[in-house]
Amino acid sequence: MRVEPRTLPGFMELLPNDQIQFNSMMDKIRASYEKFGFLPLDTPIVEMADVLLAKAGGETEKQIYRFNKGDNDLALRFDLTVPLAKYVCQYYNDISFPFKRYQIGKVYRGERPQKGRYREFYQCDIDIIGDGELSLINDAEMPSVIYTTIKELGFDDFTIRINNRKILNGLFAELDLEKESVEIMRIIDKLEKIGKENVVKCLEDLKIETSKIEKVMEFLKIDGDTDTKLEKLSKLDFSNKLFNEGVTELKEVIKNVRLFGVPDTHFNVDLTIARGLDYYTGTVYETFLNDYRELGSVCSGGRYDNLAEYYTDKKMPGVGVSIGLTRFYSKLQEMDIIKNTPKSISKVIVISMLDNNDRALEIGSILRENNINTDVYLEDKKIKAKFKYANRLNVPYVAIIGEEEEKNGTVSLKNMETGEQNEISIDELITILKK
Amino acid sequence: MRVEPRTLPGFMELLPNDQIQFNSMMDKIRASYEKFGFLPLDTPIVEMADVLLAKAGGETEKQIYRFNKGDNDLALRFDLTVPLAKYVCQYYNDISFPFKRYQIGKVYRGERPQKGRYREFYQCDIDIIGDGELSLINDAEMPSVIYTTIKELGFDDFTIRINNRKILNGLFAELDLEKESVEIMRIIDKLEKIGKENVVKCLEDLKIETSKIEKVMEFLKIDGDTDTKLEKLSKLDFSNKLFNEGVTELKEVIKNVRLFGVPDTHFNVDLTIARGLDYYTGTVYETFLNDYRELGSVCSGGRYDNLAEYYTDKKMPGVGVSIGLTRFYSKLQEMDIIKNTPKSISKVIVISMLDNNDRALEIGSILRENNINTDVYLEDKKIKAKFKYANRLNVPYVAIIGEEEEKNGTVSLKNMETGEQNEISIDELITILKK
Repeated sequence: MRVEPRTLPGFMELLPNDQIQFNSMMDKIRASYEKFGFLPLDTPIVEMADVLLAKAGGETEKQIYRFNKGDNDLALRFDLTVPLAKYVCQYYNDISFPFKRYQIGKVYRGERPQKGRYREFYQCDIDIIGDGELSLINDAEMPSVIYTTIKELGFDDFTIRINNRKILNGLFAELDLEKESVEIMRIIDKLEKIGKENVVKCLEDLKIETSKIEKVMEFLKIDGDTDTKLEKLSKLDFSNKLFNEGVTELKEVIKNVRLFGVPDTHFNVDLTIARGLDYYTGTVYETFLNDYRELGSVCSGGRYDNLAEYYTDKKMPGVGVSIGLTRFYSKLQEMDIIKNTPKSISKVIVISMLDNNDRALEIGSILRENNINTDVYLEDKKIKAKFKYANRLNVPYVAIIGEEEEKNGTVSLKNMETGEQNEISIDELITILKK
Repeated sequence: MRVEPRTLPGFMELLPNDQIQFNSMMDKIRASYEKFGFLPLDTPIVEMADVLLAKAGGETEKQIYRFNKGDNDLALRFDLTVPLAKYVCQYYNDISFPFKRYQIGKVYRGERPQKGRYREFYQCDIDIIGDGELSLINDAEMPSVIYTTIKELGFDDFTIRINNRKILNGLFAELDLEKESVEIMRIIDKLEKIGKENVVKCLEDLKIETSKIEKVMEFLKIDGDTDTKLEKLSKLDFSNKLFNEGVTELKEVIKNVRLFGVPDTHFNVDLTIARGLDYYTGTVYETFLNDYRELGSVCSGGRYDNLAEYYTDKKMPGVGVSIGLTRFYSKLQEMDIIKNTPKSISKVIVISMLDNNDRALEIGSILRENNINTDVYLEDKKIKAKFKYANRLNVPYVAIIGEEEEKNGTVSLKNMETGEQNEISIDELITILKK
């Protein structure tokens, strides 16, 4: 009896040509993270359920893949932050602080599958964890990594939006609106979509006093370039300590972001971003591709006071950002705007027109010794089938060996894009393919 | 209430310095596979249980991680071969045959944990799948890939042992010992360990006729170099068709292995290897590091007639090999014989002796623009703490910026291995670190 081969909905599975692009993006993210000295981590996908769920709440518990094996209550990780918290506690004595680590790996959330949502997806995280304390300057390294990474992925026009949670939290404290803060944030978050007037209406619906709404709107009105915003912020003259701490931190972070070499064209202060997760306590980031705002933030994160409080009484503040690669890739693919990725693994396919592959194998070995990815077509098929294979593999060159070429010690190299074909020596072949 | 942070037994979790080595090995395996034009695949770790278990038997069913989520009966993949079979059936119309793919990924087997056994481990597989047929010359590509890969991993003295299952199967058919073949193979497998006399004793215990045991021993006696063995094989003059087919195939494969550029010093014919899995039907491979035979085979595989018979009536023969990287790495690490891997992610750590990091950040940016992985130490700590951090990270260089260096536009570069320290220009710094 046959089983129908099928893949679970919400689990991305790519064709090879797409996988090449996906891997290329992942390689670039990894290389960018390593350029800043982040250390690699690869924690298990399966963990004890109580370890993973130590700090989790409602949605996470519902979505998690949890199961028993023998006597163990196990689960698949749903993010890379909890495994990091676990890791720094477990190996506290063996790692150096500040601990800069990246992890690129699959995580699992049993959401209802829908377009653009995945149940298995890659996260690409970096975090810097301090032992007891972590200086504010680390908050300025994140935009620098984001800048390098998104550039490396081939995008030039993007904006890293920076804010500090203390400013918003301080604002709400100042206005005695702490209880309503979550609701207000939800409304503010829609500012761009619904406009100022509708924000006011929504706030009125919450029965907030007019004078307070005016204060909120005054705050939201702060505009201009980065320095103008910072100046206007200082002039607001709120007495709340947290608010002023936030303003001071934000100024300091912005100063250092510039020292880290991020140009003013690629970041700004956005006082409205809060990030959903409530563990962010200071600087927060979002990153938008300006031509593709509909993608949402492609790289987000922030500063948190205490990474691992559910495992240890050691205080471990940290700052980090994450790219949700699976979703990012699938959107880019859908919009057909993936940049700068190779189209094939092999640079060349060697095809023999002779009744044997001896010379083709020889040339294949020579090319590989020169670090050129080389496929040799081995099947005994008609020449048309061989070229069809080369075409479908998107390979940029085909090296053909016929009687003439074998006699001359040459190959005929066909450029698959231009169609141009020339008989050349092996040395020339290597030179062209190495380019 | 605090949860104890812990990792499941049998799940490898490495410290960063070890992870760097592990990743380097994985990178080299991937690069070697790509050098031969194998295409990347990344199938889900979670699949429908009936899909994964379509061709499975006893042990697999016992070891598999299987669980329900909603109405779905799910499981974690236990190898990369079943997902490949699934994949070629599902995307049959979208892929090109022969389909050369590699996959490097984690697989799961709930074995009883013991030293050197893992429940979560990486497999690094390559396979070439034909549509209906796949020419024998592909069997010769495998040793070439193995040769390139193991060399790339830094080992020079290793032997790829090649055999053809048809020879052993034909031998048993010739002697009418097919029913006993599994038992006999198990005994033959121990030849090296227990010696010829004990093999004879074991065969006698199986109540095999003396004349047949003599035939088996005559077969096992075949020795000499590769060509001598092939010659002696031909001279055995067994009438069994399968046997002779196997001999012919083995000769042809050996001829092509040489054409693929694998030197005779690195492969031989080993008529006793059968490989446990019963789906191999032709050529089989094992690879031993000659100085570390106790590691067992580090790269094995073979030819199979029909990859996907549980999903389709299309015949898909294939040939492939696999490296069990997690086990391989853990053994190498235990023996302290990991070769040619980097010791750190960063090439240099920039340390400021000033009361600010401005110049350090500037130099960090310059180095990164030159594609040099660079960490800048940002915490406000004593110089001793900064160097301790650099030491623990195994970083080869530290670039120090004091008042003098800031004034001169230089850095003092300390070679952490030799202890040598020189004040140099930024251009010199780039040149040294790029080496």
